[in-house]
Amino acid sequence: MKITLDHGGGGRKTDELISKIFQPHLNSPELMKREDGGIFEHSFVISTDTFVVTPIFFPGGNIGDLAIAGTINDLASMGAEPRYFSFGFVLEEGLDTSDLEKILKTMEDLIKELKIEVLAADTKVIEAHKKENPGLYINSTGIGRIYRPVLGRDSIKPGDGIIVTGAVGEHGFAVLSHRLSLSSTIKSDTRPLWPLIKKLLDNVQVKFMRDPTRGGIAQVLNEIVDQMSFGIEIFEEKIPVKPEVQGLSELLGIDPLEVANEGNMVIIVAKELVDEALNILHSHPFGSDAAFIGEVSEEHPGMVLTVNTYGARRILYRPVGTKLPRIC
Amino acid sequence: MKITLDHGGGGRKTDELISKIFQPHLNSPELMKREDGGIFEHSFVISTDTFVVTPIFFPGGNIGDLAIAGTINDLASMGAEPRYFSFGFVLEEGLDTSDLEKILKTMEDLIKELKIEVLAADTKVIEAHKKENPGLYINSTGIGRIYRPVLGRDSIKPGDGIIVTGAVGEHGFAVLSHRLSLSSTIKSDTRPLWPLIKKLLDNVQVKFMRDPTRGGIAQVLNEIVDQMSFGIEIFEEKIPVKPEVQGLSELLGIDPLEVANEGNMVIIVAKELVDEALNILHSHPFGSDAAFIGEVSEEHPGMVLTVNTYGARRILYRPVGTKLPRIC
Repeated sequence: MKITLDHGGGGRKTDELISKIFQPHLNSPELMKREDGGIFEHSFVISTDTFVVTPIFFPGGNIGDLAIAGTINDLASMGAEPRYFSFGFVLEEGLDTSDLEKILKTMEDLIKELKIEVLAADTKVIEAHKKENPGLYINSTGIGRIYRPVLGRDSIKPGDGIIVTGAVGEHGFAVLSHRLSLSSTIKSDTRPLWPLIKKLLDNVQVKFMRDPTRGGIAQVLNEIVDQMSFGIEIFEEKIPVKPEVQGLSELLGIDPLEVANEGNMVIIVAKELVDEALNILHSHPFGSDAAFIGEVSEEHPGMVLTVNTYGARRILYRPVGTKLPRIC
Repeated sequence: MKITLDHGGGGRKTDELISKIFQPHLNSPELMKREDGGIFEHSFVISTDTFVVTPIFFPGGNIGDLAIAGTINDLASMGAEPRYFSFGFVLEEGLDTSDLEKILKTMEDLIKELKIEVLAADTKVIEAHKKENPGLYINSTGIGRIYRPVLGRDSIKPGDGIIVTGAVGEHGFAVLSHRLSLSSTIKSDTRPLWPLIKKLLDNVQVKFMRDPTRGGIAQVLNEIVDQMSFGIEIFEEKIPVKPEVQGLSELLGIDPLEVANEGNMVIIVAKELVDEALNILHSHPFGSDAAFIGEVSEEHPGMVLTVNTYGARRILYRPVGTKLPRIC
């Protein structure tokens, strides 16, 4: 079998690659949990991601702040406060050092703002994929300390509420519209969510969190119900989607629910805590668009349905491959 | 300024890139030490490396065992026992999954042998550089627990002995001869040195260790004397070099002292401990070629000299760039 770009899409093809090729050889109790990070020494979490987004500068961010925000959001989803980072840079021959410096400057700013410490770094140089447009890749590995434990997927029960902290699909559509040279005001939502999530954890017991990157919230919601005795119902009209994203989505025929976010979190809390959680999220600028979008249901176990205003239901499938390669 | 392959060579051009472009933005007390890993929470060390070697299979190893051995050797050089790993895979479109599985299998074997735990992993897919020959990159980030502290560069004094644990230049010449389709029996020395180093640390106080990868022992020895009040003298005839490496080195005009090793360690101990250290190293198969190759000198501070059998001295400079891009 040959690797295709679909294997990197974060959907079903990625799942297949991981379960059939990677897992037989690389496995451990922590990896088998399929979370966004692994716990060690009881109180630490480690998460890793290599960022290969193209273009390296896009509306609302660049590969550098994306590398930091992405890993911080993974740690945050485990209830962990980001503390220590390592970075592995792979530079393409011909990359302009002024571009590299711009990227490093945005990384520096985020590192200072979030008081994280960079402990290790590595730099390699390879030939450029496209000589006229050399880029770079950044591996970002973060270590966090567990701040408040998240209860986990096993704690989820019918009736629980599902929240997203922001409008969906902005990162994917920002990168895409930039690649296609479309005139658009859509900006990536790239941002580190820890300050927002910390505030939430201080006040509300969270059952589950995951940041919907590749594959969007369609992927995350399907991961939540996978092999569980419950399903999920999403109220279509409650999903926050910016008008520009909606417009581009209709134009290109791409469902914003399947598109990557880089500053958004899917959160599950008990029904009675939904209002309090929303109040807290709304009080922080990164959570101003937070919305209650659906609930856990005892019907149709293992499946995610969307319900529209007329009560019509449709299955929200796990995306298969990717319409947007190299999105993060 | 444009990035060139020389910036990835591990020599003076890499140093310039790091000090002029990276350090103004990414810095921390741990990074400023310029060690192969950073210490956190007093007892842990983290080290990161992205492996981009081409070809992905070479005599004596592949990119997978290289990714593990390389990071383990970095941790070992800090006196740390390898414990936890994360891996970031970047696969090129068109890569054959049977090749990927071969690589994962060698990783699995090493992971089991060394009882390390893989806590996190990530997979991305990008377009291939060369469609006819797709490859992959692996970021390997390791966390170790400090087993015995190494005293550090400040503890080095004139008279101290310098040891290498194996013959030099084998990794670089193995990859190079494979790339050039030369008929050669040289194999890469890719191997995880922790079991050997652990045995040494159990018995001998080590002052300094570093594994001489890119830039070879010429680079490491120059890093040791950099801005210090001592120099180093290396006895040319005592450096272990396999005849095949010597032959290829003369043929191609490449100094084996400037060539990457992936299972070798430069070690500094007090003069009176040299014999004991060598006895311990010789008792392990990975240290069978270990040799005392030189000593720290109070003359010519900041410089490394080699001395030949006739007493003639020459300066061993820090390599500038790289004759061998994508060696690790």
